[in-house]
Amino acid sequence: MRIDELPTPAAVVDLDRLERNCAQMGEHVARLETRLRPHVKTHKCVEAARLQVHGHFGGITVSTLAEARAFAAAGFRDITYAVPIAPARVAEAAALVRQLDRFTVLVDGEVAAAELEACAAAQSVRFAVMLKVDCGYHRAGVDPVSDAAVALAARIAGSPGVDFRGVLTHAGHAYRCHNAAEIAAVAAQERAATVGFAERLRRAGIAVPEVSIGSTPTIALAEDLAGVSEVRPGNYVFFDSFQAAIGSCTLDNVAFFVVATVIGSYPERGVALLDAGALALSKDEGPRHVEEECGYGVLVDPVSRRPLPGLKLHGLSQEHGHVRGGVGAIATLPVGARVMVAPNHSCLAAALFERYAVARGDAVVAEWRPVRGW
Amino acid sequence: MRIDELPTPAAVVDLDRLERNCAQMGEHVARLETRLRPHVKTHKCVEAARLQVHGHFGGITVSTLAEARAFAAAGFRDITYAVPIAPARVAEAAALVRQLDRFTVLVDGEVAAAELEACAAAQSVRFAVMLKVDCGYHRAGVDPVSDAAVALAARIAGSPGVDFRGVLTHAGHAYRCHNAAEIAAVAAQERAATVGFAERLRRAGIAVPEVSIGSTPTIALAEDLAGVSEVRPGNYVFFDSFQAAIGSCTLDNVAFFVVATVIGSYPERGVALLDAGALALSKDEGPRHVEEECGYGVLVDPVSRRPLPGLKLHGLSQEHGHVRGGVGAIATLPVGARVMVAPNHSCLAAALFERYAVARGDAVVAEWRPVRGW
Repeated sequence: MRIDELPTPAAVVDLDRLERNCAQMGEHVARLETRLRPHVKTHKCVEAARLQVHGHFGGITVSTLAEARAFAAAGFRDITYAVPIAPARVAEAAALVRQLDRFTVLVDGEVAAAELEACAAAQSVRFAVMLKVDCGYHRAGVDPVSDAAVALAARIAGSPGVDFRGVLTHAGHAYRCHNAAEIAAVAAQERAATVGFAERLRRAGIAVPEVSIGSTPTIALAEDLAGVSEVRPGNYVFFDSFQAAIGSCTLDNVAFFVVATVIGSYPERGVALLDAGALALSKDEGPRHVEEECGYGVLVDPVSRRPLPGLKLHGLSQEHGHVRGGVGAIATLPVGARVMVAPNHSCLAAALFERYAVARGDAVVAEWRPVRGW
Repeated sequence: MRIDELPTPAAVVDLDRLERNCAQMGEHVARLETRLRPHVKTHKCVEAARLQVHGHFGGITVSTLAEARAFAAAGFRDITYAVPIAPARVAEAAALVRQLDRFTVLVDGEVAAAELEACAAAQSVRFAVMLKVDCGYHRAGVDPVSDAAVALAARIAGSPGVDFRGVLTHAGHAYRCHNAAEIAAVAAQERAATVGFAERLRRAGIAVPEVSIGSTPTIALAEDLAGVSEVRPGNYVFFDSFQAAIGSCTLDNVAFFVVATVIGSYPERGVALLDAGALALSKDEGPRHVEEECGYGVLVDPVSRRPLPGLKLHGLSQEHGHVRGGVGAIATLPVGARVMVAPNHSCLAAALFERYAVARGDAVVAEWRPVRGW
């Protein structure tokens, strides 16, 4: 089957680009002398994860327990669940601890730590635990310059039933950057804050085996990873139009697309409609801080994969993509024409599909099925 | 099982409220002396559709061919596919025409009309076709005061292999309203534009058996449906915080929630984190034209289902919901606490789940599974 034969909307993975993205990130991380524990949350499928870990140590990062179970079943043996664990789900983590060589969970406070201790005692398991650090994103994590952070690390490190594995951060604030130089500065901050915290802990007598950092923007543009034992980028496998807008990559790196068909064309009012709406693309607002009118993704030609000039995907309803452009540009999109969309946020768009058509050039060579749920 | 035992994030349907929403819409439509052909795109599951059509003629509206096939398999016999059909998918529609008492498709231009004719001739089927009318939303549809619209209707009505079933519109611009009075005005416009167009066609000698209109806001607040043969609201089954904000309903009508667990609590910086992020709630921006800082849904108490004061779900990343509030308000959300979220847009949030826990009060009494894909 060819891409132009797929019923639309369809999710397409450009395998050549994905392989290149994996190779480039792998080489970059090796050059900076650290280890790659790629995140699999963007694609959630085993085949892509195998390409990510090829030539690396094999550990992966997941964002849900459902991913952890699916990748464990597929043979991955060292998995870090990089979202603070809910106390009620600690028993599920215990099952993964038993199944894997290493299943690492994340905490940043007393409640979850106590729940892990209680479960470890009740079920005779030892949890591998990392302490989540806030390196400036201000989502989860302890403040790495606070005394409370050292006290919590000491409390976890001394905790029965728990192996303290080290510190972990995610510089999500890199997504607020406007260009590569700003991202590189955040990358330096991410490293410095986390390595600095690890050194504080070591000075306090706490062993810190692992220092884990990473987001796709910061790792792609990091120039120095000294003191970092592993990095956890994930989105780089697919990239997306957001990453291109902030300078983590170019549009030529984007390896995930939604193929759509034009179902309405009204050149006289400068509008065309696609059969890919919010349920195919997600409603991620995109890089509005870089381009206020970015719309909901970049429209590209399905053969050349180059942006279609003069056309903007300015709105999404449930099953319609609303394209705007001049009379002449809309006239290039008659009903029945096909386009591809590089979504704003490939992680969210990919999760909307039951399957991805994996293509080399125009030929569909495989079908991948992502894990769903939690 | 009780709601408070569900692993989170979980989708919960409040069955008492859903039944009340269905009854109220059904009675309202009956009082206005027209027929209800409810849309099923919000919930995409058979059980909810059966409650919607109970006491009505049994016809439904769908937004995808996947929904059409699933509901046909479940015994629904009269289905309208209310998105302009892509030419490449006309053969799939032909299969549904053969299977059902009536399967109606939508066109608003020459290309799809010609494709239907060609398929009808090749496969010896007769398509039931409605002409999509733009009543002011300016998404799809013909301009009902144009001569071209009458010409297209005449061309379809005279087309071999096609039964011209009438005219259909959707006042999506009702979602831009700020209150019930504005919505009622859009409802009057939706009716007038479409009924007026049907009358123009009839004066031109074209039979117009059906005049189909509808969105949840406009039908909920319509005061006059004279000349309208059927209405197609859908979201009213669940409603959501957007509908409440614009005045289509109140928060007491909302029948779909996402249950979440607090996985991070930082009163000192006014932040809490939920385990429900963009993959559980969707990133619909919500009613920003009514309330700029609406966030991504309304947080409610899981027992009383009343809004939680002083807390805002101000951001979503893939698997985190970011709550902001004062020190005291955040202190009411310790790690492990559970909340419910009335999402901005229930259609998009519901589609993210493999199953809904259907509850009466706190008791889960059923599990419903929505259709997925296209």
